[in-house]
Amino acid sequence: MESRVLELTTGRSPAVIDITLEVSEFCQGRGGGLVSIFLPHATAGVALFETGAGTEPDVLMAIEDLLPARQGKWRHQHGSPGHGRDHVLPAFISPSITIPVVDGRMTLGTWQSIVVVDTNVDNPNRKVRLSFLAG
Amino acid sequence: MESRVLELTTGRSPAVIDITLEVSEFCQGRGGGLVSIFLPHATAGVALFETGAGTEPDVLMAIEDLLPARQGKWRHQHGSPGHGRDHVLPAFISPSITIPVVDGRMTLGTWQSIVVVDTNVDNPNRKVRLSFLAG
Amino acid sequence: MESRVLELTTGRSPAVIDITLEVSEFCQGRGGGLVSIFLPHATAGVALFETGAGTEPDVLMAIEDLLPARQGKWRHQHGSPGHGRDHVLPAFISPSITIPVVDGRMTLGTWQSIVVVDTNVDNPNRKVRLSFLAG
Repeated sequence: MESRVLELTTGRSPAVIDITLEVSEFCQGRGGGLVSIFLPHATAGVALFETGAGTEPDVLMAIEDLLPARQGKWRHQHGSPGHGRDHVLPAFISPSITIPVVDGRMTLGTWQSIVVVDTNVDNPNRKVRLSFLAG
Repeated sequence: MESRVLELTTGRSPAVIDITLEVSEFCQGRGGGLVSIFLPHATAGVALFETGAGTEPDVLMAIEDLLPARQGKWRHQHGSPGHGRDHVLPAFISPSITIPVVDGRMTLGTWQSIVVVDTNVDNPNRKVRLSFLAG
Repeated sequence: MESRVLELTTGRSPAVIDITLEVSEFCQGRGGGLVSIFLPHATAGVALFETGAGTEPDVLMAIEDLLPARQGKWRHQHGSPGHGRDHVLPAFISPSITIPVVDGRMTLGTWQSIVVVDTNVDNPNRKVRLSFLAG
């Protein structure tokens, strides 16, 4: 298995970061297999959705509806006010996804982008582990 | 890796489509490994739950609770009224899942079925990529 | 692919069970690859989040917000009152996750634990299938 770690800056506000290009480059020149995108973090998730047409803020709004960053709501009380909800996020938006690769290209649909969803305002630097398992 | 694409008709209303049989057939005669079920679509997800006892409408109701198809709520405004929520769906119900296979049979529990969850009323035709990575 | 089944007792109330140690031991002495954690159950999910600082009850509260165990709300009506929601849970918290393994060690972040999330009060005994696909 080939594996390497990508470094990302997600900043100090809730963010959706598109990493499709980086993962595509990682897969180039490999044959068929599965690519694993894995975040070694407890307050972020990885997802596949359309970017550039409003879905990024829509996803952050839906997260806020389900997991409001309201002080006092959450038992976990470290970090910035409301940070407890960031720790619940990966239960709903998992930090791990796999995507099939055929002839060195991910089999994504036209409107799918790979994104890191990071509501945590206390940790602006993130890692993403990319691994390729040939089949 | 063996990979092929299944074609589905999901229709013009929110739908839960059971594909367990198709995936089982795809795995038959293979040894041990992982089967990947992957939707190349930005407005649908794949899940494992019980079918035939009411959970299909229950899941669609829970999606409506979290992501109401209400015009004006969503920034994404293409398509039918409320379609913006369909683009948020795959952040919560991922379009990718893997299932272990032993001796050509998925290791599903008694009550688990593989389903495509598709709230998008604008796209009645869907593809599902099945891939088998032998181990 | 190496695969084995772990037995768990999750008890008769909603529970979050940490299985990080068991999965770590399963991966020891193997090289690089993907470990699959798979629940053959229709009313539980597997997730990665921090344990020991309040997130376990926070996740159970968020599940209750989204999927209240209220009799009459759910179409699925077998089992204890409100059990219908347990069947919706795996649509949102999947029973399947994969984690990259390098040199026999999972590449988890410092604060990530592997947990089984089980809201079902009717089934206190659970199985977890661990599978290792070498790469």
